[in-house]
Amino acid sequence: MDELRIKELLESVRSGKLTIENAFSKLKHLPFEDLSFAKIDHHRQIRQGIPEVVFAEGKKTEDVIAIANALYDKSKKLLITKASKEIFDGLLIKDAVYHPLSRTITANSGKKKKGHVLILSAGTSDISVAEEAAVTASFLGSKVETVFDVGVAGIHRLMGSQKSLNASKVIIVVAGMEGALPSVVGGLTDRPIIAVPTSIGYGTSLGGLTALFAMLNSCVPGIAVMNIDNGFGAGCLAHKINLLASK
Amino acid sequence: MDELRIKELLESVRSGKLTIENAFSKLKHLPFEDLSFAKIDHHRQIRQGIPEVVFAEGKKTEDVIAIANALYDKSKKLLITKASKEIFDGLLIKDAVYHPLSRTITANSGKKKKGHVLILSAGTSDISVAEEAAVTASFLGSKVETVFDVGVAGIHRLMGSQKSLNASKVIIVVAGMEGALPSVVGGLTDRPIIAVPTSIGYGTSLGGLTALFAMLNSCVPGIAVMNIDNGFGAGCLAHKINLLASK
Amino acid sequence: MDELRIKELLESVRSGKLTIENAFSKLKHLPFEDLSFAKIDHHRQIRQGIPEVVFAEGKKTEDVIAIANALYDKSKKLLITKASKEIFDGLLIKDAVYHPLSRTITANSGKKKKGHVLILSAGTSDISVAEEAAVTASFLGSKVETVFDVGVAGIHRLMGSQKSLNASKVIIVVAGMEGALPSVVGGLTDRPIIAVPTSIGYGTSLGGLTALFAMLNSCVPGIAVMNIDNGFGAGCLAHKINLLASK
Amino acid sequence: MDELRIKELLESVRSGKLTIENAFSKLKHLPFEDLSFAKIDHHRQIRQGIPEVVFAEGKKTEDVIAIANALYDKSKKLLITKASKEIFDGLLIKDAVYHPLSRTITANSGKKKKGHVLILSAGTSDISVAEEAAVTASFLGSKVETVFDVGVAGIHRLMGSQKSLNASKVIIVVAGMEGALPSVVGGLTDRPIIAVPTSIGYGTSLGGLTALFAMLNSCVPGIAVMNIDNGFGAGCLAHKINLLASK
Amino acid sequence: MDELRIKELLESVRSGKLTIENAFSKLKHLPFEDLSFAKIDHHRQIRQGIPEVVFAEGKKTEDVIAIANALYDKSKKLLITKASKEIFDGLLIKDAVYHPLSRTITANSGKKKKGHVLILSAGTSDISVAEEAAVTASFLGSKVETVFDVGVAGIHRLMGSQKSLNASKVIIVVAGMEGALPSVVGGLTDRPIIAVPTSIGYGTSLGGLTALFAMLNSCVPGIAVMNIDNGFGAGCLAHKINLLASK
Amino acid sequence: MDELRIKELLESVRSGKLTIENAFSKLKHLPFEDLSFAKIDHHRQIRQGIPEVVFAEGKKTEDVIAIANALYDKSKKLLITKASKEIFDGLLIKDAVYHPLSRTITANSGKKKKGHVLILSAGTSDISVAEEAAVTASFLGSKVETVFDVGVAGIHRLMGSQKSLNASKVIIVVAGMEGALPSVVGGLTDRPIIAVPTSIGYGTSLGGLTALFAMLNSCVPGIAVMNIDNGFGAGCLAHKINLLASK
Amino acid sequence: MDELRIKELLESVRSGKLTIENAFSKLKHLPFEDLSFAKIDHHRQIRQGIPEVVFAEGKKTEDVIAIANALYDKSKKLLITKASKEIFDGLLIKDAVYHPLSRTITANSGKKKKGHVLILSAGTSDISVAEEAAVTASFLGSKVETVFDVGVAGIHRLMGSQKSLNASKVIIVVAGMEGALPSVVGGLTDRPIIAVPTSIGYGTSLGGLTALFAMLNSCVPGIAVMNIDNGFGAGCLAHKINLLASK
Amino acid sequence: MDELRIKELLESVRSGKLTIENAFSKLKHLPFEDLSFAKIDHHRQIRQGIPEVVFAEGKKTEDVIAIANALYDKSKKLLITKASKEIFDGLLIKDAVYHPLSRTITANSGKKKKGHVLILSAGTSDISVAEEAAVTASFLGSKVETVFDVGVAGIHRLMGSQKSLNASKVIIVVAGMEGALPSVVGGLTDRPIIAVPTSIGYGTSLGGLTALFAMLNSCVPGIAVMNIDNGFGAGCLAHKINLLASK
Repeated sequence: MDELRIKELLESVRSGKLTIENAFSKLKHLPFEDLSFAKIDHHRQIRQGIPEVVFAEGKKTEDVIAIANALYDKSKKLLITKASKEIFDGLLIKDAVYHPLSRTITANSGKKKKGHVLILSAGTSDISVAEEAAVTASFLGSKVETVFDVGVAGIHRLMGSQKSLNASKVIIVVAGMEGALPSVVGGLTDRPIIAVPTSIGYGTSLGGLTALFAMLNSCVPGIAVMNIDNGFGAGCLAHKINLLASK
Repeated sequence: MDELRIKELLESVRSGKLTIENAFSKLKHLPFEDLSFAKIDHHRQIRQGIPEVVFAEGKKTEDVIAIANALYDKSKKLLITKASKEIFDGLLIKDAVYHPLSRTITANSGKKKKGHVLILSAGTSDISVAEEAAVTASFLGSKVETVFDVGVAGIHRLMGSQKSLNASKVIIVVAGMEGALPSVVGGLTDRPIIAVPTSIGYGTSLGGLTALFAMLNSCVPGIAVMNIDNGFGAGCLAHKINLLASK
Repeated sequence: MDELRIKELLESVRSGKLTIENAFSKLKHLPFEDLSFAKIDHHRQIRQGIPEVVFAEGKKTEDVIAIANALYDKSKKLLITKASKEIFDGLLIKDAVYHPLSRTITANSGKKKKGHVLILSAGTSDISVAEEAAVTASFLGSKVETVFDVGVAGIHRLMGSQKSLNASKVIIVVAGMEGALPSVVGGLTDRPIIAVPTSIGYGTSLGGLTALFAMLNSCVPGIAVMNIDNGFGAGCLAHKINLLASK
Repeated sequence: MDELRIKELLESVRSGKLTIENAFSKLKHLPFEDLSFAKIDHHRQIRQGIPEVVFAEGKKTEDVIAIANALYDKSKKLLITKASKEIFDGLLIKDAVYHPLSRTITANSGKKKKGHVLILSAGTSDISVAEEAAVTASFLGSKVETVFDVGVAGIHRLMGSQKSLNASKVIIVVAGMEGALPSVVGGLTDRPIIAVPTSIGYGTSLGGLTALFAMLNSCVPGIAVMNIDNGFGAGCLAHKINLLASK
Repeated sequence: MDELRIKELLESVRSGKLTIENAFSKLKHLPFEDLSFAKIDHHRQIRQGIPEVVFAEGKKTEDVIAIANALYDKSKKLLITKASKEIFDGLLIKDAVYHPLSRTITANSGKKKKGHVLILSAGTSDISVAEEAAVTASFLGSKVETVFDVGVAGIHRLMGSQKSLNASKVIIVVAGMEGALPSVVGGLTDRPIIAVPTSIGYGTSLGGLTALFAMLNSCVPGIAVMNIDNGFGAGCLAHKINLLASK
Repeated sequence: MDELRIKELLESVRSGKLTIENAFSKLKHLPFEDLSFAKIDHHRQIRQGIPEVVFAEGKKTEDVIAIANALYDKSKKLLITKASKEIFDGLLIKDAVYHPLSRTITANSGKKKKGHVLILSAGTSDISVAEEAAVTASFLGSKVETVFDVGVAGIHRLMGSQKSLNASKVIIVVAGMEGALPSVVGGLTDRPIIAVPTSIGYGTSLGGLTALFAMLNSCVPGIAVMNIDNGFGAGCLAHKINLLASK
Repeated sequence: MDELRIKELLESVRSGKLTIENAFSKLKHLPFEDLSFAKIDHHRQIRQGIPEVVFAEGKKTEDVIAIANALYDKSKKLLITKASKEIFDGLLIKDAVYHPLSRTITANSGKKKKGHVLILSAGTSDISVAEEAAVTASFLGSKVETVFDVGVAGIHRLMGSQKSLNASKVIIVVAGMEGALPSVVGGLTDRPIIAVPTSIGYGTSLGGLTALFAMLNSCVPGIAVMNIDNGFGAGCLAHKINLLASK
Repeated sequence: MDELRIKELLESVRSGKLTIENAFSKLKHLPFEDLSFAKIDHHRQIRQGIPEVVFAEGKKTEDVIAIANALYDKSKKLLITKASKEIFDGLLIKDAVYHPLSRTITANSGKKKKGHVLILSAGTSDISVAEEAAVTASFLGSKVETVFDVGVAGIHRLMGSQKSLNASKVIIVVAGMEGALPSVVGGLTDRPIIAVPTSIGYGTSLGGLTALFAMLNSCVPGIAVMNIDNGFGAGCLAHKINLLASK
């Protein structure tokens, strides 16, 4: 049942050809029978709060470029994650920026940033995931502060960041190996904490599963956990919470 | 270095026995040398935003009762999770309430509730975990709405809850088996979503691991995931976010 | 948007208060805004082809009895799986039958059976799952033949069942331990095969995972695989295929 | 016991040298003693319903070409899965077609197609597996319709396909990540559903195991599950069911 | 094709109604069409070398007793594994013996024992599995020697058994925990070694998987490995090898 | 080759019957041929530094009592781990002590204790394992200090123990759930650290595997890790190191 | 205690300087104190029945060549497994032979072969492992027969090999994917069966673990199982059993 | 609160502006409020006993060189693990040494070595990990002895090393495959043992997990276990223990 048919139905109601009862009955089942006009999903950002983002991993360079250009043409904004330098070089978008640490590309992410998202990471190898979270949250409109290399083996360095903890609305904690940092941070603050395990480590780090499970078992209640290396997801969630807290 | 010694040090400064440089030097290493006066942790709730809660699973009935009574005497509030009816019957606390579905006990959780936490659950067997989340968030001070039995196999029932989705500040989604509900909900709203996998299922549900992994792999970005059956943690996180959003 | 509001909208169209364009625009988003009238799910069987069935495992005896009585009152049919004898004894339904091998209860499953569903099982311990599949498919309306104890270690016994293989429309194969039977059966017939792994075995049978994985890796292409011990699901699928083949 | 010996036995019966009882006794054990004349398996397609197909993964290009040519010479039909472009270029078969999305090669798959197999896929990355299923079912003789990119995060797009669901005889649902699509589709139709998990995803997608386990745990009863990325198997099973339903 | 039809076919040959070519052609496919007369499997022991044995685990006491009595009536021999004392007390078999360490029951296992099977076990907790292997091999007709408590932490005790190693035809090595004993024994002898992991241990012993995997990875080539706690299987294999070596 | 034969060999050397070369050659292979006189292992404690200890888990009460009495008679010392109160009540040993928290029994463990073993534990539920380590190290002769409930969520409580860290020779750290405590302790001290994961936790704690893997992946180099709940092993290792450091 | 010291000891006995008691006492502990003269392990083949073999996987080409040449110089025999063509080309050994299917190199393996080892394999991809077993058993001195491509999906082909089954002393069965072949073979013969799982397969074949676990769970008692792809180990064990059976 | 502010506070005390009570109260929370002056971690080696070491795996060559040069400039010592030859060639450090077996680089590790660390390894493939442990312990200041290729399949070779066992203070045992060597060594000595599993092996070695789990389950109590391939960690721990024992 496309637009045309619904309008015809409404005209039949207006002209009296169709009783209201019958029209109602037909409309009641409408979404389950035919919604092909809804196929073009113009309203995703409105519904979910996050615009379409291009995940470049496993896609061909030329395909990513084509999708990215089309998306940018429509919305004048762009975020590509897990992007190579080749993709960036092939884009025809003037104000695009390549972030090499996190391998992300942004374009036109806006100047006005709200609230305060704090991003902590444990080891130097975790920085790429932390950066992906930072670029994402900033692209979506959040003000972001990053503090790297505050792993639990040097606990006093973390304690030196207490002022940043207090200033933040929400905190992303990125850690690989034993994944202990979110618990320690959680003991020092009442802010919502988003934990991101990374695949950094070897042997029994099991590609990040150990850090993931450690975070899910934190002795601090209520830590939000993301999939392994999912800096992008953490950035999205942090932005949503930050936005709620900064209205 | 206890309170006495710090005060002596300060008196030495006042009396001129100790130069400022030397006093500073001694103080600099203070937290790493001796902080035994900090042992009594009066300030946990202030630091972490969540008061001490009694987790009754695996503890003896008489021990839980003793801990709970002591905690209530100090703070005039109480939350016990995974509690048996025996524990409730043994408590001497007048205004304690037993919530049988979630096996929680609350006392004096306050009348004024803020904001709007929405809790959805997929199957009838997931209700106990959803209830634990509801009791927790409510105890901490959030207004809570629950909608049960809106699993993905009957997707139109979920869609009938669109008004609740829109009214909420944050949404907890509880599901076992294939754990698909958070993804579907995430496609319909821009609110932060907290997903709680349950151990409901058999065979390859692997005690809830399948639902957990499915939620961590959601095609909707930024879903916060909790440990299996961790309704309490979800309630804590939802309350923190709700509080931020309701100021 | 409830029934009332839709009818008011339609009256506004008829009376000319609302243009067709505006009415269309409002209706377009209808299913995503409010569908609370759809809450009562009368039509599940029509939509999915399988009526509501009571899964008794993990539920209290009195609850199962209450749900079962209510369901029977509405539909005059009943299927309960993983049911104890206590549940059967507590039911007030005259024509209910208890099947002890599979621990299922049926009532009023009808006399006319269609087509031919063949159910094979490997070991004597797999019979309970095979029986659950048989009771389910029969309850839904399929004619069922069962051949038990035709495991691969005595391959000539299976070959003696070639006539049954040829007569069937669809074949369910139930096996635990190494789960090899579906592959061997698949080499002897062109019928669709539904494989059900059971949790029979010890050590590296891993509670049925080994049989499950073996079936998913069958060298015979196109074998349908169910969750471990899921005789009920196999019965549902077999009935659907049998029905299609027997029209 | 080869052909010669059996014929000698039969001649001994005709000539009266051997009683019928004795001849019967000898013949009874025949298949277990010696069946070397059965070695050449001319009748596989008749027995199993699926012709020999070449699985190219892990084989050398020249070997695949040799096997494929031999097979085509005998049967004048050909299906190669997981095939590289190099294999296609090396084939001497005039009417062979290369399907790049699914990396399959078909030759002479026939014009007349029966019934209606519907193939849905969740993400753009799942298309290669969906295409393999489509090419396979079509090669075997089924009419195939494909609808891609109807993942659960945009549930209304799926609902726009209700007409296709109704028209189909059997439905293949391909999904990676959380593997939720088969459950949602299963809530909207009474057709047999074949679920194919894909290895798309990272971290806890565990190379497709999470999607697989989610599908095996679907809250919709009776979903047929295939091995990870096994589009070929899904095509075979769908064709068998479609054939039964289209007689 | 049953007995009757084969005999009719043979009569047609004798009477000349059927040419030898045609009769041969019909007979060629015989085992794949119908072999229902082969259903009664009188010849298992002849074919596989091991008589039917009753595995009591998970079966009801009365069922085990019924099966055991029937089996004993037919063959005048009996072996039941994982049997309780209740089963033994309920048996009506005069010469039955209960072996409490291994929870096995034997009857009439014969006096003449051949060859030499040596059974070593590592810890005192592994003795039950070792005993099951010993009872089984002895029941089948092998002479058995057992040496217990020769774990790798006291390597010189094992070395004191060198004479037994030299005298044996085949050696069963039973070990839990780290499963190291088969490797050490394998370094001291050229006899075939059958390794049996046990479920003894805790934590990362993973119910015996660690010992199993260690044995499969032995640095000594050619060690035969059994399923966890499968003393019965080890006894069967050892007996087969011992028999070959003692002819 | 028993004692007698070796002495005969030596006498043949003395009497000149055997050349030194030949005697040497015979002796060279001695330990691999026959060492049955070494069977009685009187010297285990001398060789391994730890006396025989009774592990009561999974053994019958009467068996444990018999073994314990025999051991005590020989060595006048006794340690039983995982012991029930019933075992203690059945022992006839006058100076035996039952330690209920760790379920251990000791007798005559000596008064003089050396060095300083520090034992830290994270949660109240980990105390039983920590106590087992404490009782073991003390029984073997080490001076032991315990500090419980210093989990990472309250990091300042741990810092208040800096003086104990400095005084110790070796530190045992016991933790369940996310297993983070050893890393944090390791950042504060240069003492050898022995980490013991416990099975405390639920869901993805996987019975202690998560804490174990986290400890093996500690960002602090050189932490010694024990099996899950293995307080006894930790006590043994700590004692060995403490002894070396306290000579 | 080296050779010199033992001889001195013996001389002291001869000269009367040392009593026999004292000499005995010193010798008793000899193997545990010092056996450095035993360091050169000339007698491995005698002790274990299998000569040193070179496992080339993961070693550098030049290292393998050096080790192989040295080994051949000493023993005039050679077996290298998992060898590349480059290694073969670099060897200076005149009678060396390269077996490309199994990537093994043999030299001077002898003409006289004993007994009868039968090697069956399921799929064409399993042939490389089967060939490794064949080359190994033949190199060690066994007569070997191979029958490839007798997978369970074409069960009558296997039955055509009944004569070979009967003629063999021991049977190696190689299979990947669902690993069902050993069970089926085990139902047809009383010979010892050695099952070798291969890593052939994808998805839930888990690199061969599924085939391995299926074989360990065979419903036929007493099947010997090897590590994944361990054709060499199977060849060693088969040879040992064949040798015992062919004396 | 930086240095300046603390000194101002102290001056306020001296000048009488601030009471001792108030000053104490401010100081009490100092480490949790502001410790930014502690950010520069000059004292890691003092606190933890191990200097900063560069872990090169997964880092870019130029980054490792930059970090290494900076570290060397500050401390005049250097250890890089998992280093390529390219890194070594790019370093400007005169006295740097490349250890190819273990892929480590050291500079200026000092001449005076203390105590005695014994390092044993099982197979030739385990040598790289053993060497990493040896280089590390030696760099930190320990005297190191290595004995390679003493696997359990040739147990008498190990016994020839008894003198080295006796001379050592602490023993590192490196083994892959079944990981049995630490148990055997533990039966022969009372020294603390540090077990290092390696990833050497295939199939069920599971990348070293099997050896790891075997070591954690050793029947010898108190073996310290490291992560897979973690020679560096073993070297650190051995050095710490050796240092304590050699004071």
